[in-house]
Amino acid sequence: MAERSEEDKLKIARAITEALATPEEIRDDWGRLIVDTVLPDGVWSRPGLNQRDRSLITIAALTALHRPNELEIHIGRGLDNGLSREEICELIMHIAIYGGFPVAVEGMAIAKSVFEARSDD
Amino acid sequence: MAERSEEDKLKIARAITEALATPEEIRDDWGRLIVDTVLPDGVWSRPGLNQRDRSLITIAALTALHRPNELEIHIGRGLDNGLSREEICELIMHIAIYGGFPVAVEGMAIAKSVFEARSDD
Amino acid sequence: MAERSEEDKLKIARAITEALATPEEIRDDWGRLIVDTVLPDGVWSRPGLNQRDRSLITIAALTALHRPNELEIHIGRGLDNGLSREEICELIMHIAIYGGFPVAVEGMAIAKSVFEARSDD
Amino acid sequence: MAERSEEDKLKIARAITEALATPEEIRDDWGRLIVDTVLPDGVWSRPGLNQRDRSLITIAALTALHRPNELEIHIGRGLDNGLSREEICELIMHIAIYGGFPVAVEGMAIAKSVFEARSDD
Amino acid sequence: MAERSEEDKLKIARAITEALATPEEIRDDWGRLIVDTVLPDGVWSRPGLNQRDRSLITIAALTALHRPNELEIHIGRGLDNGLSREEICELIMHIAIYGGFPVAVEGMAIAKSVFEARSDD
Amino acid sequence: MAERSEEDKLKIARAITEALATPEEIRDDWGRLIVDTVLPDGVWSRPGLNQRDRSLITIAALTALHRPNELEIHIGRGLDNGLSREEICELIMHIAIYGGFPVAVEGMAIAKSVFEARSDD
Repeated sequence: MAERSEEDKLKIARAITEALATPEEIRDDWGRLIVDTVLPDGVWSRPGLNQRDRSLITIAALTALHRPNELEIHIGRGLDNGLSREEICELIMHIAIYGGFPVAVEGMAIAKSVFEARSDD
Repeated sequence: MAERSEEDKLKIARAITEALATPEEIRDDWGRLIVDTVLPDGVWSRPGLNQRDRSLITIAALTALHRPNELEIHIGRGLDNGLSREEICELIMHIAIYGGFPVAVEGMAIAKSVFEARSDD
Repeated sequence: MAERSEEDKLKIARAITEALATPEEIRDDWGRLIVDTVLPDGVWSRPGLNQRDRSLITIAALTALHRPNELEIHIGRGLDNGLSREEICELIMHIAIYGGFPVAVEGMAIAKSVFEARSDD
Repeated sequence: MAERSEEDKLKIARAITEALATPEEIRDDWGRLIVDTVLPDGVWSRPGLNQRDRSLITIAALTALHRPNELEIHIGRGLDNGLSREEICELIMHIAIYGGFPVAVEGMAIAKSVFEARSDD
Repeated sequence: MAERSEEDKLKIARAITEALATPEEIRDDWGRLIVDTVLPDGVWSRPGLNQRDRSLITIAALTALHRPNELEIHIGRGLDNGLSREEICELIMHIAIYGGFPVAVEGMAIAKSVFEARSDD
Repeated sequence: MAERSEEDKLKIARAITEALATPEEIRDDWGRLIVDTVLPDGVWSRPGLNQRDRSLITIAALTALHRPNELEIHIGRGLDNGLSREEICELIMHIAIYGGFPVAVEGMAIAKSVFEARSDD
């Protein structure tokens, strides 16, 4: 993969830290760390698992860990990465067993709100 | 799916509570709850996600939640369900981002020990 | 205990998934899993601990795990199951020691809001 | 309740920090903090919940939070405080629902080992 | 340090439980436990670490544990205790590695809102 | 800072994955991710907080999150980074308040074992 230019990287970093509220004191460094480590150039860019599988495991971890804000973002990304609504629901039900029903109840509510927001498009 | 007989269910429940240390005071009820809710007749038997996908999300959740004993079991099951060693490693590296590097360091050590035990077969 | 009919079970499942926001894609299955595993026909229906004791341990776990939405529901159920307001407060203070003061601070705020909503009845 | 003398408090604090491995650099202060905040003079000494109820909620929280070492101690104390083995098993099964099956699997194994150690007495 | 009078302690306890919503059933006891165990007379009053260091470790723990409400309070206190905005941002970025990026994303958003509220002064 | 050569980076990565058990399937990539993201070239190399402060917050997070294996490593590094034994004990006691006494009890035991291993030198 051709390395992304520093300038392009900064542009993406800034788009990320527009979307995620970030103090200006660290904005560019934090954005660049996300670009390099998470996405688009971090673990998500590695070939070992495809984007759909990465969405599955990310949603699984965020549901289990009870991180509602990030979960909302990644349920949307999961749909973009080819997961069906039924698969996302099934995943959240499965996590009820491993992380407890309360985290799945939350996950279901977030999934519902993401699905409904998409239906309005 | 043909319902399993109560007798068969109890046989499986007892095999489970042989494998997982369980007080005799609750052994049969606990085993049956696992049979009906987890596996083989619980969420793992539902058609909405295949066994490989369920292994992916289970390993993701157990790594993120830092549950080393269950993780060891499910890395083995993941191999049985068709995940490659490379995919399991990739999954654990991905979870470093969402659950922190320490849980992935643990996950890597457990994966290594499971892989090595299999190589001895 | 006489088995509940499938029809009755579905009726209760639907009431649960009215109360808890759930995607329609999984609503009935998720509701039925809750009915069978959690309540009314799951662990809550077992004779080994009475309803008051089950409320005590559920509130303890939800406070310690920092699950505010479920905690709100179960503080209300705890009052219905015979816990006094003083006992619920005492329980939350006790959990400060085992789960940290921040989870108890949250629990106290939720208890206050549940108590006040009841006082308005 | 008559205040305990500073000398008596220190004696108890030292017994605690004998039982729990503690660096000598902080031993007496840490022991005294436990005496005053946890037990015997902390939350456990308050009249608002009896000792059996406090054991119930402590075991519930420790199971849900996955704290195996402390759980072992408190299952033993729970037996001393009047909980039956059946009640402790029932409690752990209940927590499977709220904290996930893996924490209950661990809890069951710890309960079994505590029960067996007592049977040897 | 001269012991604080019971009357003064109660006054501070009441100010704390004004600020943190607390059921009246336990207000004074809960406030006094905070005064004696947390602050101003608890761990925060001990000489072994200065106030700035205690703010560092408190913010680190609250970020890692994902306790947004308490984190907001302690980022403000951290500024009062001499941490710069840059140091707080750096701390939260560091915790991304140990607790996962999602908890740091939340921490950054909270830091931004606290910083902006102060800028309005 | 002069960029480290790829060859040097790989050498450090391999030393890390010797120390931390890692499956050979991902060893070099995982080691390099740690080098770039954690240390020596990741967050630990940033000037915004000194090494002592970074040890403080890392130990705080690992104690609160209950990650005993990593905590052991970082208590040792903390001593190397200039923290005194007294400060590390004080830190762990402070975290009892924010993460609960059980995680601090564990932290104290780990600190004791690290201190004693050093005394044998």
